[in-house]
Amino acid sequence: MAGEPSEAGVPAAEERTLVRGDQSAAGPPQPFFHSRWSPKPEHIRDLGPAAGLPDGFRAAGVACGIKPSGNPDLGILICDSEHPTSAARFTDTGTPAAPVLVSQQHCRLDALRVVLANSGCANAATGRRGLDDAAKSQGAIAMAVGVQPDEVVLGSTGSISHYLPMDNVLRGILDASSRLRQEGDGDFQQAIQTTDAFEKRANLEVQLSCGTVRLSAQCKGAGMISPRFATMLCFVQTDAVLGAETADLLLGVCVQRSFDRCTVDGQLSTNDAAILMCSGASGVVVAPESEDELRFGEALDALLRQLAIMMVRDGEGAERIARVTVRGGHAPSVEAVARAVANSPLVKTALNGADPNWGRIVQAVGGALGGRGPYPSPLAVDISIEGIQVCSAGNAIPYDETALAKAVRAKEVEYDITLPGDGAETEVFFSDLSHDYVTINADYTT
Amino acid sequence: MAGEPSEAGVPAAEERTLVRGDQSAAGPPQPFFHSRWSPKPEHIRDLGPAAGLPDGFRAAGVACGIKPSGNPDLGILICDSEHPTSAARFTDTGTPAAPVLVSQQHCRLDALRVVLANSGCANAATGRRGLDDAAKSQGAIAMAVGVQPDEVVLGSTGSISHYLPMDNVLRGILDASSRLRQEGDGDFQQAIQTTDAFEKRANLEVQLSCGTVRLSAQCKGAGMISPRFATMLCFVQTDAVLGAETADLLLGVCVQRSFDRCTVDGQLSTNDAAILMCSGASGVVVAPESEDELRFGEALDALLRQLAIMMVRDGEGAERIARVTVRGGHAPSVEAVARAVANSPLVKTALNGADPNWGRIVQAVGGALGGRGPYPSPLAVDISIEGIQVCSAGNAIPYDETALAKAVRAKEVEYDITLPGDGAETEVFFSDLSHDYVTINADYTT
Repeated sequence: MAGEPSEAGVPAAEERTLVRGDQSAAGPPQPFFHSRWSPKPEHIRDLGPAAGLPDGFRAAGVACGIKPSGNPDLGILICDSEHPTSAARFTDTGTPAAPVLVSQQHCRLDALRVVLANSGCANAATGRRGLDDAAKSQGAIAMAVGVQPDEVVLGSTGSISHYLPMDNVLRGILDASSRLRQEGDGDFQQAIQTTDAFEKRANLEVQLSCGTVRLSAQCKGAGMISPRFATMLCFVQTDAVLGAETADLLLGVCVQRSFDRCTVDGQLSTNDAAILMCSGASGVVVAPESEDELRFGEALDALLRQLAIMMVRDGEGAERIARVTVRGGHAPSVEAVARAVANSPLVKTALNGADPNWGRIVQAVGGALGGRGPYPSPLAVDISIEGIQVCSAGNAIPYDETALAKAVRAKEVEYDITLPGDGAETEVFFSDLSHDYVTINADYTT
Repeated sequence: MAGEPSEAGVPAAEERTLVRGDQSAAGPPQPFFHSRWSPKPEHIRDLGPAAGLPDGFRAAGVACGIKPSGNPDLGILICDSEHPTSAARFTDTGTPAAPVLVSQQHCRLDALRVVLANSGCANAATGRRGLDDAAKSQGAIAMAVGVQPDEVVLGSTGSISHYLPMDNVLRGILDASSRLRQEGDGDFQQAIQTTDAFEKRANLEVQLSCGTVRLSAQCKGAGMISPRFATMLCFVQTDAVLGAETADLLLGVCVQRSFDRCTVDGQLSTNDAAILMCSGASGVVVAPESEDELRFGEALDALLRQLAIMMVRDGEGAERIARVTVRGGHAPSVEAVARAVANSPLVKTALNGADPNWGRIVQAVGGALGGRGPYPSPLAVDISIEGIQVCSAGNAIPYDETALAKAVRAKEVEYDITLPGDGAETEVFFSDLSHDYVTINADYTT
């Protein structure tokens, strides 16, 4: 935290990666579709990390000195198609960062050609100068790769309240734009990461009825992850031919079922963005309301859900993750209860300690419904953990203690909550609250 | 967590006291009014812990085996006045515990004579049997001390989802009712504590224009503390003559300015209760809309605010506490921002680590205002920490880095946030998020 905010030596969030070195060694879970909560659809094939981007895309990632560590911190992704289509979703925060504001206000979000992303500096709470820096970056890369500035979407992640070191950024843009290649997605991924302990990246093949298309994604996020929409940076590419409206519809629906349903610490970032770009290079058309729209949508849905679960698994300090599913007859209550349980520090520490203390779930349910909802007291709530019912109509009931103690020691734990009535249902994925979360976020003193 | 919930050997929350032994040794801050946020009014005198209860009150606390540790776990407080008045506030949760439901539905809350409180078991999520147990306790103590059951208010605290061991409770009632004495408030206090590291108790003398009255309080609470109203058990006694309506008015206002404005972990308990009882033994009348109503109200306000701040200070694992004050022109935004900052795990870990990372405050502000509020982007928010301004109209500004680093190492840290407009203002007291919070709540495995 500089007294006079400077343009270099920014103490960026990525420094914290050091703390997590041992976790990083563990690497990402394999194969890509590894969670029971995101089964791989039959018509998807995982091509692995080395498969490269879909036709029509190139990417690069370089180190330009935004991160004092010298790690990669600037990435470019470009679509070479003549008529690309795209769709975008951004954070819902009341304090959006400069790159979000510039992207929302000065971009053709339905026809993007270029992503410029950096880590090590969020360019947030930087006022007019931050907006100027963002616009300057947009102009510089447009010149470097020969597109219009409004075809460039921006993504930044890192510490809030620091200015972008513009000399470094401009040098990085020149460097990265000379290294663009179809196999550059791994370098691009490295350049957008901050406290991530492992890569969140996929290269898939999707079998449609009219042919085969590719789907790739690069994603970062490990903290400041909240259930209200996006949570991070996520860039998705396909060589399918999608109209901009179809791309927008599918991205919107899939984001709601993935990034909108996960939480690490209930904190909404200033910088979140999810971008879908379509090169059309395969010639395979995904027409509105066709069977292939459904099949492509299923693939995108599976991809984003698995990425969202990986973000939760990589939540800062996370040792165990969970899904809470809430059913009942009143949609707002179901939603409020799911988020209250997922963000409860008491539930999250119990998850961490493999403590089957379901009284804390009762407490979180009550806190969410307090003073609202159509429910008489005592609340007739049912609670099951990993299929073992522990609470029936608000009453403690006998259960197999040994089986429950074993179940909550798993890497993924399932909570089911049923409120009175039926018709409404939702789910939230969440991580635990561990000593490492505190270490990462408290012991790092600027 | 018993497979078949049993009536003995309840693994109660108070076991966790052991973890906090070293903090306990530190004892409560002295004198009682020690925070800059709750200055002692001129007309109050602190009589110290040994002064005993106001005339007309007796109390006792015993160990009856609800806590496996053998620590005190059942307390009785009785008003011997012929015409006592009283007022009560309870948790706003959607899953209230049996003692709350029975007290709300079957008590003369404006004319209470007896408090029966226990720790070690919350009697929550215990259904019909829990309600029967609560009613049985109420009947037993009514017989033992010679009052009507509806003159007995109940308070329970401890683990959720366990039944009260009724044999122990009945034995404890007999034992405690034979030990009632005016100096029994210390024993009573011990009997209602769970993870509390120090006593939250006061004996005050209040100078009114018509005479001097006494005011005492016993309070417990260290976790599951939320900003939505009460947060714990708090029992207040006075020998002033108050009408029941005056008592209700004053308790309501003072609770809103104290227990309603503090948070440890944003978790709303199933069992919270605040009870004011007036014996009238002093003969000094506090008449409605009199100067003495104001003076008595000021004293009650100071008492409850200091108790609320002590609860935050004793928040599970708390090493540092803070007050966030938010000003602006839109009351719902001001409220949402204050609570979002106070409950943000990123702000709370920064407070713990004495990290002046105010970017996290920007993030919390944005998260609270996202998608709502009347504010254009970028948000023109001002932020000061301990009077040092770090953010002006949403922009990072130069500040004295050394002074700020020193300021955030204090035991009490002050955050000021100003949104556009004026006329609305609120405050929330909160604790940090430390390793000890995780230890207390995760490493304790049933």
